[in-house]
Amino acid sequence: MKGCFITVEGTDGSGKSTQIELLMKYLTDKGLDIVFSREPGGTEISEKIREIILDIDNKNMTGTTEALLYAAARSQHVEEKIIPALEAGKIVICDRFVDSSIAYQGAARNLGADVIMQMNSFALHGLMPDMTLFFDLSPEKGILRKKNERALDRLEAEKLDFHKRVYEGYRMLCKMYPDRIVPIDADRSVETVHKDVVEAIDRLLKEKHYV
Amino acid sequence: MKGCFITVEGTDGSGKSTQIELLMKYLTDKGLDIVFSREPGGTEISEKIREIILDIDNKNMTGTTEALLYAAARSQHVEEKIIPALEAGKIVICDRFVDSSIAYQGAARNLGADVIMQMNSFALHGLMPDMTLFFDLSPEKGILRKKNERALDRLEAEKLDFHKRVYEGYRMLCKMYPDRIVPIDADRSVETVHKDVVEAIDRLLKEKHYV
Repeated sequence: MKGCFITVEGTDGSGKSTQIELLMKYLTDKGLDIVFSREPGGTEISEKIREIILDIDNKNMTGTTEALLYAAARSQHVEEKIIPALEAGKIVICDRFVDSSIAYQGAARNLGADVIMQMNSFALHGLMPDMTLFFDLSPEKGILRKKNERALDRLEAEKLDFHKRVYEGYRMLCKMYPDRIVPIDADRSVETVHKDVVEAIDRLLKEKHYV
Repeated sequence: MKGCFITVEGTDGSGKSTQIELLMKYLTDKGLDIVFSREPGGTEISEKIREIILDIDNKNMTGTTEALLYAAARSQHVEEKIIPALEAGKIVICDRFVDSSIAYQGAARNLGADVIMQMNSFALHGLMPDMTLFFDLSPEKGILRKKNERALDRLEAEKLDFHKRVYEGYRMLCKMYPDRIVPIDADRSVETVHKDVVEAIDRLLKEKHYV
């Protein structure tokens, strides 16, 4: 595949959105053709699935159902949007992807990384990110940031213990995929974090012959 | 598990609904404690997933997404409703279950029975029906019946060729599971078909010591 697939991961409140905005501006200023997307969601059908997943009223949802819904939304997203964009040579930046499923459903919901990877083997259609930026912030600090912002969705509203397990899931992923996942200390100023993002992305663009 | 799990399968228009009504009356008249359910659906969350699956506007939905959504709805249904009812010793009658996924997504959407069974290994939580009634009617006749009834949903609205592949999927399942699946010729009067249903169900109730 010609394009370049970058995913962004982190616990809630780790500053992903701000950093994605800055990264997109950086790439656009370079004249590169980028596509932004997010999970769960990214296509009309996947956004409908997102509504069910995040609806605070769906308190009875089991971990397995949740994981299968994420896989369903991802399957549609990958086939309908991401793969076509990559085939057209574009740079795709995605806010959350399969690592979120491993951290949230695999680790925090205790389904296990293996089960999540098996489910997602159907949803990924052979695709994995070229690079994953992991914004590393302690869950205590992240949740505090988020609470001050707006009403929480069903997953954000989980207890601190849940978010700690998510964080441990991400740390495990960093060890499992050291070549793909770039951990970035997110407990610093926006500008300093952005500088590290640019350094990692520049390296990838060079490897992929974009610059 | 103490209860008894009966599923009902067939192509669209094969007369499932009418036969289920008669069967439920038959069992209720015997004083048995029955629970009726349907797929996709059966719980609040699964019914929300059902809306996405059957929405005629979701034309771009890929076969894999569809199959994962069915598995997600089933997972919630099995854990929240079917298993608790069976544990309470009830007779659960379900309009469509995992065989529908094999016939519709496995056979008709060409994903293959193996892929569907792998996906559903997460959704079934070890549960399989004690008996499955398959109402055997040629898809040509079934679709004709359905069209005269009401507006078709996204799956019913598929072309005849699709429904023929569904039917072939069911025939394959009958060969794979001759002990579990009872094929019933549905191209006869409602009363004659009901007589065959009662015969099969009476045999099962005896085996399970309900009568």
